[in-house]
Amino acid sequence: MYTQAELKKLVNKAILNLSYNEEAEKLNDPVKYILSIGGKRLRPVLALMACNLFNDKIDDAVIPATGLEVFHNFTLVHDDIMDHAPVRRNLPTVHSKWNLNQAVLSGDVMAFIANECFLQTPAHCMSKVFRVFNKAAIEVCVGQQLDIDFEKAAIVSHEEYLRMIELKTAVLLAASAKIGAIIGGCDDREADLLYEFGRNLGLAFQIQDDLLDIYGDVKVFGKILGGDIISNKKTYLLVKALEIASVEQAKQLHKQFALKEFDPEIKVKTVVELYNQMNIKNISENLANNYINTAFSLLDNLGVINERKTELADIASSLIGRDN
Amino acid sequence: MYTQAELKKLVNKAILNLSYNEEAEKLNDPVKYILSIGGKRLRPVLALMACNLFNDKIDDAVIPATGLEVFHNFTLVHDDIMDHAPVRRNLPTVHSKWNLNQAVLSGDVMAFIANECFLQTPAHCMSKVFRVFNKAAIEVCVGQQLDIDFEKAAIVSHEEYLRMIELKTAVLLAASAKIGAIIGGCDDREADLLYEFGRNLGLAFQIQDDLLDIYGDVKVFGKILGGDIISNKKTYLLVKALEIASVEQAKQLHKQFALKEFDPEIKVKTVVELYNQMNIKNISENLANNYINTAFSLLDNLGVINERKTELADIASSLIGRDN
Repeated sequence: MYTQAELKKLVNKAILNLSYNEEAEKLNDPVKYILSIGGKRLRPVLALMACNLFNDKIDDAVIPATGLEVFHNFTLVHDDIMDHAPVRRNLPTVHSKWNLNQAVLSGDVMAFIANECFLQTPAHCMSKVFRVFNKAAIEVCVGQQLDIDFEKAAIVSHEEYLRMIELKTAVLLAASAKIGAIIGGCDDREADLLYEFGRNLGLAFQIQDDLLDIYGDVKVFGKILGGDIISNKKTYLLVKALEIASVEQAKQLHKQFALKEFDPEIKVKTVVELYNQMNIKNISENLANNYINTAFSLLDNLGVINERKTELADIASSLIGRDN
Repeated sequence: MYTQAELKKLVNKAILNLSYNEEAEKLNDPVKYILSIGGKRLRPVLALMACNLFNDKIDDAVIPATGLEVFHNFTLVHDDIMDHAPVRRNLPTVHSKWNLNQAVLSGDVMAFIANECFLQTPAHCMSKVFRVFNKAAIEVCVGQQLDIDFEKAAIVSHEEYLRMIELKTAVLLAASAKIGAIIGGCDDREADLLYEFGRNLGLAFQIQDDLLDIYGDVKVFGKILGGDIISNKKTYLLVKALEIASVEQAKQLHKQFALKEFDPEIKVKTVVELYNQMNIKNISENLANNYINTAFSLLDNLGVINERKTELADIASSLIGRDN
C-alpha cells in the first residue's frame, strides 16, 4: 500500500514530467506556475488511493490522476478571473501575475493537457474513464454558474447551496475516486461506491472549508479569518443562519451584509456572534460529520480487506480535522 | 454523395440536438447563441466530406464533426474576449451581450461539450480520432499565443506569420479532414493525405481572409474594408510588405501604423497604395493559389474515384473564390 505522502510525491513527479508543446513558451509559463505552487494534490491522491484499493500496481493510474489535477488547476485559473481574486495559496493569481488574456488562454490549454492525460489511460478502460471525467467537468462548470447566480440571489436555501458545492467541488472528488478504482480493476458496484465516497468527502470538505474561514487557526489556514464575511460570500453557515434566524436576527444579518462602509473586525465579530446565538458552528460541524460518516460506512461496505482502506479512511478523517 | 448544402443541414440539425446539462440554464444560453448564429460550418462539413470520400454512410461521423464546430466556437468566444471584439457575424459577441465572466465560463463548458461529442465516436477509432482532435486543440492555443505575441512584436517574418496561421487556423481544418476520413475507414496514408489537404486549404483560406479585408466586396464580406489596417493587425499582406519594402516604403508603412490619430479612410488608402506599389495583392493571391493547388494535387493522389472528390474540390475552390 502506498501512503498519502508517497502518492503526493508520485503526482508531483508526474506533473514535472508533463510534456508541453513548447512552440510558444509564454503559453506554458502560467501552466507550470499554477501547477508548481502546490496544494494538497487531493484529487490525484484520492484517485491513486482508490486504484491502490484494488491493485498493488498503480502505474496505469498516475497520468490520468495527473489529468485530474491539471483540470482542477484549470478551473482555479478561470475561477480566479471570475472572482477578481488577486491571491491564491499566498501567491499572485495567474491573471494578476500576467494578465487577463494570458489567464484565459493558458487556462484553456490546460483543459486540453488534461485531455491528453486521460487519453493515456489504458485502452481497455479509457473511454469509461474519460466519460466519468467529462461528465464531472461539465458539472463543475454548472456548479460555478450556480455559484455566480447565487452570489446575486437574494435568498439561497441550504439545499440549493449544498447542490452548488456538490457540483462545484464534490463531483470532481467523486470522479477522482471512481476513475482510480476503475483503472485499479474494480467492478461497477464498487466504482459507484467509490464515487459516492468521494462525493460525501467533497461535501464534508467544502463545509469544513466554510467553517475554517471563521473558526480556523489562522496560522494553519493561511488566510485572514472571516474573509467570507467581509466579502459577503454566501457560505453554508450564512445560508443556514438566514433560514433559522429569528426575525430580529435575520434583520441584523441582512444589515451587516448590506453595509457599504464598515470596520472589517467589527463586521466579522457581529456576524460571528449572531452565528453563535444560532449554534451555526455545531450545526455545520454535524453536517460535515454526517457526510464523513456516510463516507466511512460506504468504505465499510466495500469487499476489500480493511488494511487496504486505511489510507482512504485517514484522508477522510484529516479533511475534517479529526483523528481517525 | 452528399452535397455541401446537405452536409451543412445535417450539422445544423446535430447542433440543435446537442444535449446540455440544464441545471444552470444561464450557462448554456451563450453556447446556444454562438452556435446558432451560423457561419459556414466549414470544419464539420469538411469532416463529413472526407468521411464520405471513403464511405456512403456518414452517420458515425456527424457527432464528432459537430464536436469540431463546438470547439471552433469555443475558441471564437474566448478569442473575442482577448481581442476586445464587440461584434462577430454582425451580432454582439458573447462577452458584449452577457459579460466577461459568462464568456469565460460558457466558453469553458463548450470545450467539454466538444469532448462529449468526440467520446461518441465509434469505439474502434475513438481514441485515434480524439488524439487527432486534441493535438490540434493544443496547437490552436499555441497559434493564438503566437498571434498575441506577434501583435506586440516589432518585426514578424512572413514565415513566422504563416506558421502562426497554420497553428491557429489550418491545423483544425487539417484535423477535421483527417478525423472524417478515419471514421470513414481510410488507411493511415490516406488519413495523412487528408490532413495535408486540410492544412493547405486552411492556409489558403486565411491568406484569402487577409486579402478580402482590403480587396473584398463589402456586401459579400460583411465587414468594413481595411479593418485590419485601421486596427494595426498584422496580416500576411503587411508582414510581406514590410519584408520587401524599400527603405522609403518601409518608413511610410511604419509611419501609418504608428499614427495615434488618423482619418481611417486616408490611412487605408495610403497603406493600400503602398501595397499596390509592392504588388502585394498578386504575391498574396499567388501564395493562396499555391496552397490550393497543393491541396488539389493531394486530392489527385488519393486512390478514390474522381466523382467522389468533387465536393471537396468544390469547397477548396470556393474558399479562394474561384470556379473549379
